[in-house]
Amino acid sequence: MADYKAPLTDMNFLLYQVFNADTMWQQLPQLNEQVDQETAVAILQECAKIAEQEIAPIARQGDEIGVSFTLNETGIGGQVTTAPGYKEAFNTFAQGGWCALGGDTNYGGMGMPKIVSAFVEEMLCSADISFALYPILTAGAALSLAKHGSEELKQRYLTKLYSGEWAASMCLTEAHAGSDLGIIKTKALPQTDGSYQITGSKIFITGGEHDLTDNIIHLVLAKLPDAPDGPKGISLFLVPKFSVKNNDELGANNNVSCGAIEHKMGIHASATCVINFDGAQGFLIGELNKGLACMFTMMNFERIGVGIQGMSAGERSYQNALEYAKERRQGKSLNPTAVKNSDGGKKQPDSIMVHGDVRRMLLSMKAFNEGSRALSCYIAQQLDYATFATDELQQKGETLSALMTPLAKAFFTDLGFESTVAGQQVLGGHGYIREWGQEQLVRDARIAQIYEGTNGIQAMDLLLRKVIGSKGKMINVFITEVSDYIKTQQDSALAMNEFIEPLQSALTDLDDISQLLLAKSSDDLNEIGAAANDYLHVFGYTAMAFVWAKMAQVSLEKLNSSDSSVENNDTEQGEYGNDFYNSKLQTAQYYYARLLPRRLSLLATIKAGCQTLFAIDDELF
Amino acid sequence: MADYKAPLTDMNFLLYQVFNADTMWQQLPQLNEQVDQETAVAILQECAKIAEQEIAPIARQGDEIGVSFTLNETGIGGQVTTAPGYKEAFNTFAQGGWCALGGDTNYGGMGMPKIVSAFVEEMLCSADISFALYPILTAGAALSLAKHGSEELKQRYLTKLYSGEWAASMCLTEAHAGSDLGIIKTKALPQTDGSYQITGSKIFITGGEHDLTDNIIHLVLAKLPDAPDGPKGISLFLVPKFSVKNNDELGANNNVSCGAIEHKMGIHASATCVINFDGAQGFLIGELNKGLACMFTMMNFERIGVGIQGMSAGERSYQNALEYAKERRQGKSLNPTAVKNSDGGKKQPDSIMVHGDVRRMLLSMKAFNEGSRALSCYIAQQLDYATFATDELQQKGETLSALMTPLAKAFFTDLGFESTVAGQQVLGGHGYIREWGQEQLVRDARIAQIYEGTNGIQAMDLLLRKVIGSKGKMINVFITEVSDYIKTQQDSALAMNEFIEPLQSALTDLDDISQLLLAKSSDDLNEIGAAANDYLHVFGYTAMAFVWAKMAQVSLEKLNSSDSSVENNDTEQGEYGNDFYNSKLQTAQYYYARLLPRRLSLLATIKAGCQTLFAIDDELF
Repeated sequence: MADYKAPLTDMNFLLYQVFNADTMWQQLPQLNEQVDQETAVAILQECAKIAEQEIAPIARQGDEIGVSFTLNETGIGGQVTTAPGYKEAFNTFAQGGWCALGGDTNYGGMGMPKIVSAFVEEMLCSADISFALYPILTAGAALSLAKHGSEELKQRYLTKLYSGEWAASMCLTEAHAGSDLGIIKTKALPQTDGSYQITGSKIFITGGEHDLTDNIIHLVLAKLPDAPDGPKGISLFLVPKFSVKNNDELGANNNVSCGAIEHKMGIHASATCVINFDGAQGFLIGELNKGLACMFTMMNFERIGVGIQGMSAGERSYQNALEYAKERRQGKSLNPTAVKNSDGGKKQPDSIMVHGDVRRMLLSMKAFNEGSRALSCYIAQQLDYATFATDELQQKGETLSALMTPLAKAFFTDLGFESTVAGQQVLGGHGYIREWGQEQLVRDARIAQIYEGTNGIQAMDLLLRKVIGSKGKMINVFITEVSDYIKTQQDSALAMNEFIEPLQSALTDLDDISQLLLAKSSDDLNEIGAAANDYLHVFGYTAMAFVWAKMAQVSLEKLNSSDSSVENNDTEQGEYGNDFYNSKLQTAQYYYARLLPRRLSLLATIKAGCQTLFAIDDELF
Repeated sequence: MADYKAPLTDMNFLLYQVFNADTMWQQLPQLNEQVDQETAVAILQECAKIAEQEIAPIARQGDEIGVSFTLNETGIGGQVTTAPGYKEAFNTFAQGGWCALGGDTNYGGMGMPKIVSAFVEEMLCSADISFALYPILTAGAALSLAKHGSEELKQRYLTKLYSGEWAASMCLTEAHAGSDLGIIKTKALPQTDGSYQITGSKIFITGGEHDLTDNIIHLVLAKLPDAPDGPKGISLFLVPKFSVKNNDELGANNNVSCGAIEHKMGIHASATCVINFDGAQGFLIGELNKGLACMFTMMNFERIGVGIQGMSAGERSYQNALEYAKERRQGKSLNPTAVKNSDGGKKQPDSIMVHGDVRRMLLSMKAFNEGSRALSCYIAQQLDYATFATDELQQKGETLSALMTPLAKAFFTDLGFESTVAGQQVLGGHGYIREWGQEQLVRDARIAQIYEGTNGIQAMDLLLRKVIGSKGKMINVFITEVSDYIKTQQDSALAMNEFIEPLQSALTDLDDISQLLLAKSSDDLNEIGAAANDYLHVFGYTAMAFVWAKMAQVSLEKLNSSDSSVENNDTEQGEYGNDFYNSKLQTAQYYYARLLPRRLSLLATIKAGCQTLFAIDDELF
């Protein structure tokens, strides 16, 4: 496995040259206090060090050894032991203050915007998704608590979550209730002291039990006995593993136990637990029966993060496959005169970089990774506008981040998984052997398409709830955004036509197919279910074309200006050489020529309608 | 994991109603002696029993326990122990005579044609790819020996391979030589007795060492000291693990040792070995320096078989996901009036079969599995014509089987892997948990895209060697075949237009893109390398449309005739109910409406050319 090298240059290019994050920060008063370019550059640099040096090196043994489970002597519940090195790495991470990164500054958080913390998440996940899940889930739970919790709960719990002394989990799924949370059975009985007694069993709880921290704070969905049926009767509770005394010391076990851990395809070092609540004391977060809304505050942040997991695995796959491809020598170039690094007539085989199909796999990974990174940066920026702005930028940010959160989750994880499989293919047989590390990426990345709402659920959230649910208004905000951008480029002196024309074409098709589905939806909502997955990908390829056009534009500007004479990249100074911009520009050209056409088949499939999907009887399957 | 149920009905439908195998057998004298419908039906039925009852049940523990390796006390080499149950299952299999199925009748083989043995391979692989590899590799090696070996070698070794007393392996890859066999270093020194002394180290040897049989016969590629450079200096040798005395008793170890086994992503119960030859005695197979040609006799059979592995995993995935989907209840139908099995307004959730995206995944798997099975049957039939016919059918069979072997290998394994991933997605979180068995299918299926020549190599074999190499003649044989078929349907009284028109359109596009690439190839062969993978898939979707049209045609004929009043399928009698034909017809409609359009994006990508792939410098990756 190639050593992980965090793509800091690309991150800073996106932040300060493409999306002008520094300008945004200066304009938004709260962020202006908390972050500037110098701070953010330093944060990412420090995170890169930890990811490269502390976390990446434990990932392989984390996969081989995994977490282990030992039943308690009482026979009720058991202990989870993490793999060697995880406790030490988590301590280093927590002591560095990283658990506080995106936290509320009133309780010890650093208040970094998502546009910065998203890159931190990427680096952690590229280093080791299993490790990263512990702090990322904790940060997500903290976010929900910060937004909806009482002052008392925040004082008591948030500070400890930010310091990394305690961790957190999200307890949603039950054995019979996954995508369909409305039917959960976990009960919450009101107590005279204002707390609730929580009883029920949750499965698939990431980080539900482990030995990294002294306490684990569970955010649990449950129902009061008299609650309305379905999703409208769900409330959210904070349930600590160990009770917390008034002096903040830990008390007895709060009738919370880990019943088992799952044995999984991948993320072996992440504890996936059955968590049983047997009359545990819980505290209401937010209002009764509004639990789903409170949980979704976190879920929107998490889902972008899960999308980033997919991309982070794709990035690692690319780095590994590229190193292999440059070193591996097999066969000769088909056209040595056209390939710079071919040995031509010499006896020695060429590096496999000369083969078109190997270049296809590598460039597709590169284009998807950099495109996903750019698009995630764009969406994170919209989320920051939604959180920190007050004017129409806030409105637009709220709409675009809500619209594009399911896109980020599903599209980036689908492409990320594809990239891990492609990287494995570049390595040939070695890609299938465990010691090379490449196959672990495939196994680890696969879960991101499933958890936090399967990608099918994301597609329905996008198309049914957002696009159709808003009668097209939400997708129109995106279409206007890109149209406005296209207008700015139409009279440009730059050679942007090769991007702008196909972008306009893709945008028109997205608009048309959205209108078509809106019209169909009033006749038969099954058309929406049948189209959702393909629609999400049409949107994804189009949105990615948008950010690739922006990256190409900046690259062309820099290549045309005198600034680009710099020989080597100097990330700290925001100086990049011609090589960087040429690489960007040529990857953009590759994306437009050979990846954007994927939307054509998807459009044709959507237009074919749902008839053939629903005509066939279940018995004929 | 759902119990495996072999798709015998579908297999017999293909053999006797779509491809008229019985007629073919009667027409070809050698096959007429060896096989008839009654025999073949019985063979497949018996194989189904073994696959369902003896092999499928050991697959999960085979994955969990895997093969183990114990170093010998001498320190040179070691022993491989297979997982519990494998030895017993192999004995049952061998004693049933299954190792002789496709074997030469002069040496104890049963002489079954590929069109039958391909289905046997499918069932074995659906039950457990790891198990199936031991006999399948042995059969492949036996085929090469039967075709190219001396009478003495055949008498001595073939009989034991057919009886299952001994097994065989193929030893091609070396650490530095995978796709590029021309650079192998294993040496063969001629001895005065006519044998050769073989020295070298081979890696990734499937079944290179195990405890299932008393002896293992290695077919080894090696070079004589004075051999020409590259592929033209490679010879093929038979190297037994234990020497065989003149009385056919086993002698001493023949300086063949297993140095290690690989730890892999999947197929844990298949031993993937490093095999060291340290002056081992070997016997030439075929002519000196013609070893690759002898090996490729086997490879063509094997590669169709590897394609079938992909489909077999897809079939298993479909069965498992379908059972889960029917039982799992989550959410409500979006349009209950349009869905028969929705509970409508009732409180209980519907089965997830009501959701369009779940139906999409299931129907795609169904269409790909049945389409791949039909296409593999078609290709196997062409291979049988190539082997057993003498007239123009032999010529056409040779051309089409050569053309379509790389297609079968790469296309079926790509689709099969996709189907295992889709099945996993249907199961949601449970698809990621080992005990459900679904994730094993993903891990096991993945290797089939890599070994026996990566799918990228297959694509180059198809486009560069076959399509371009024959100046378009080979692809024209296929295009004529389909054109001729279309003509027979144009005046049909059946409602075939919905298939024939898009089939003609796809065929025209395939013809056009082949001509375009032929024209481009004279300017820049890199265009071929860049297009190969996409071209293979365009060909695949078109060829699959061809066999789906044939299946739809038969189904329409049967539905229009009185024969189709049968209520239940009776495979033995070749009687199928309307349900069977309706299911086929509706799956064909689904394929044409929603899967065939995939070719559109691929065509666009090919037309975009190789410019963006090769313009970018290696340093800018």
